[in-house]
Amino acid sequence: MNNYYSQEAHGPFQTIDIGRLELAEGGVLENCRLAVATHGHLNEAKDNAILVPTWYSGTSKIMEQVYIGPGRALNTDKYFIVVVNQIGNGLSISPHNAEPPQAGPRFPKVRIEDDVRAQHRLLTEHFGIQRLALVTGGSMGAQQTYEWAVRYPDMVERAAPIAGTACNTEHDFVFTETLVEAIETDPGFQDGNYRSSAEVSAGLKRHARLWTVMGWSTEFFRCGRHRALGFETMQAFVDGFMNGYFGPMDPNDLLCMAWKWQRGDVSRLTGGDKAKALGRIRAKTYVMPITSDMFFPPSDCLAEQHLIPGSSFRPIQSIDGHLALFGTDAEAIAQIDAHLQELLAQPSPL
Amino acid sequence: MNNYYSQEAHGPFQTIDIGRLELAEGGVLENCRLAVATHGHLNEAKDNAILVPTWYSGTSKIMEQVYIGPGRALNTDKYFIVVVNQIGNGLSISPHNAEPPQAGPRFPKVRIEDDVRAQHRLLTEHFGIQRLALVTGGSMGAQQTYEWAVRYPDMVERAAPIAGTACNTEHDFVFTETLVEAIETDPGFQDGNYRSSAEVSAGLKRHARLWTVMGWSTEFFRCGRHRALGFETMQAFVDGFMNGYFGPMDPNDLLCMAWKWQRGDVSRLTGGDKAKALGRIRAKTYVMPITSDMFFPPSDCLAEQHLIPGSSFRPIQSIDGHLALFGTDAEAIAQIDAHLQELLAQPSPL
Repeated sequence: MNNYYSQEAHGPFQTIDIGRLELAEGGVLENCRLAVATHGHLNEAKDNAILVPTWYSGTSKIMEQVYIGPGRALNTDKYFIVVVNQIGNGLSISPHNAEPPQAGPRFPKVRIEDDVRAQHRLLTEHFGIQRLALVTGGSMGAQQTYEWAVRYPDMVERAAPIAGTACNTEHDFVFTETLVEAIETDPGFQDGNYRSSAEVSAGLKRHARLWTVMGWSTEFFRCGRHRALGFETMQAFVDGFMNGYFGPMDPNDLLCMAWKWQRGDVSRLTGGDKAKALGRIRAKTYVMPITSDMFFPPSDCLAEQHLIPGSSFRPIQSIDGHLALFGTDAEAIAQIDAHLQELLAQPSPL
Repeated sequence: MNNYYSQEAHGPFQTIDIGRLELAEGGVLENCRLAVATHGHLNEAKDNAILVPTWYSGTSKIMEQVYIGPGRALNTDKYFIVVVNQIGNGLSISPHNAEPPQAGPRFPKVRIEDDVRAQHRLLTEHFGIQRLALVTGGSMGAQQTYEWAVRYPDMVERAAPIAGTACNTEHDFVFTETLVEAIETDPGFQDGNYRSSAEVSAGLKRHARLWTVMGWSTEFFRCGRHRALGFETMQAFVDGFMNGYFGPMDPNDLLCMAWKWQRGDVSRLTGGDKAKALGRIRAKTYVMPITSDMFFPPSDCLAEQHLIPGSSFRPIQSIDGHLALFGTDAEAIAQIDAHLQELLAQPSPL
């Protein structure tokens, strides 16, 4: 057991079994358990729902803490906000909590589209929701947002992918591969058959170091933003903040998400035709890259935005890089809030 | 022996023993051998010399191929160009070619200032040169260029550091640490006691992958520049181009250079006072970052340029990232040439 993935640390959330889920890569999850946190109330018309999927390593908790609340764009007084933890994130069904014979390294390969199909069943069958006022998420949450808008165009009224792409780039694939290698090359990893995360601590530390370098930005450290967060040196920041964050996580869970992240691609639905896939989107879409993001740079996001009918490009100005998503830059969060507020005020195109 | 570091692959160069060199970290190189390639002729006044130091993993050969020739700024019809291979690069004295007890992992720690002091002795004692018309180099060559201009301000008339900094940043230090870790965590590395580079091939491959991700840019791959170089996929580019390049190199040599790179800092001469150090520069200095460089981004270079009296900021526009230095982008090289041409036409401030 890994105590990190507990109600105490990440709750409250409920675990909902949506039943048998056949996966794109051929595997099956007989009892696909999704960890779900809801905020606000679903109205009678069931037309005030917002879906928020989660990012790599993230859970519903950080979405609640940084993005959701009364007075925010994701306003709990007005909307029924459903945060669904992605498969493999440690709260929903994941390598570390799956039953044999699927436990640990034997967990099946999961794709972004599997998450989205699972969430669709959850929303329609469990909550009886047929329309989403908004789907929004950051990073892998953005990948799921794009997949939703492409796969279920008649259900998504508005979409706001933040710091992520619809089709992952080759560059980002290799970038992510360095994260995977950092973990897998630790002898303690033992092909995924470790007994606890502590046995993979060296690999997790390297993984945290890579995240430190790529996840923020040179500007972030040059301007001493790590000192503002309480760490005198960058090394102390690696050890304290970044390794403190990733260290307790389950390596197989991280690798499950990384595999999925690398292969995010909405054009799988349209035989590899990206323009056709993005052309399916009916949702009013605001594309929101973060200006200093090394994983999903604005130029990559802009190229996709051009293919989405009626969409708008809304870059978030920040020197905090991809991890501005964490909420370290209050001004970046304020920009996201303002864009989401404006988007939610737009009439439904459906 | 490692056949990679041969006259056939990197020559012609001559090896000059400048004698005993005491190192900043306390070690001593009893017979400091520098591999030197010269181009053009030293005039009688001995005032037409240009010094070109080398970068991480680079040798005098690529400087000759990409930057030097008749009709170029580094004009062999006009100047006497001395390319000095940095200590540890495999041609000059290095871990892999040092004698016991300093061979391999027992090679002493070397700093940028040790290279510059060694080069100073070479130029003054071996060649009888007292003035340098120009010092220019890329990356670690830029670090050496800065060190030259700060340490010997009365000898350097012009300086052109390309894609490098005077004081390495914390971000770049950690960035480079990921390269070091990629090699050192390979079990075949055996604390530096491997028998051949082939035993460390997995680590060298990871090192090459990190260089692929960080050394170029997302834009480079998005625009298919790797395909223009003959590689259909980014993975083929990693395997063929990048691993083909780094794979034959000696891991201890690379680590010797990486340690030096991480700690480049001209302010060691002035008790940590960076403004004072850069204020010592009398050379007319053109600071030339590459716009898409992830290692030494323009913003870091600009902050230093502001501290150099009479200097000029000349960013090189390219999407090839740091490795535009390799000469893959002809337009970037043309820009560098034009800036160097203009700089060489400036009157000497000495």
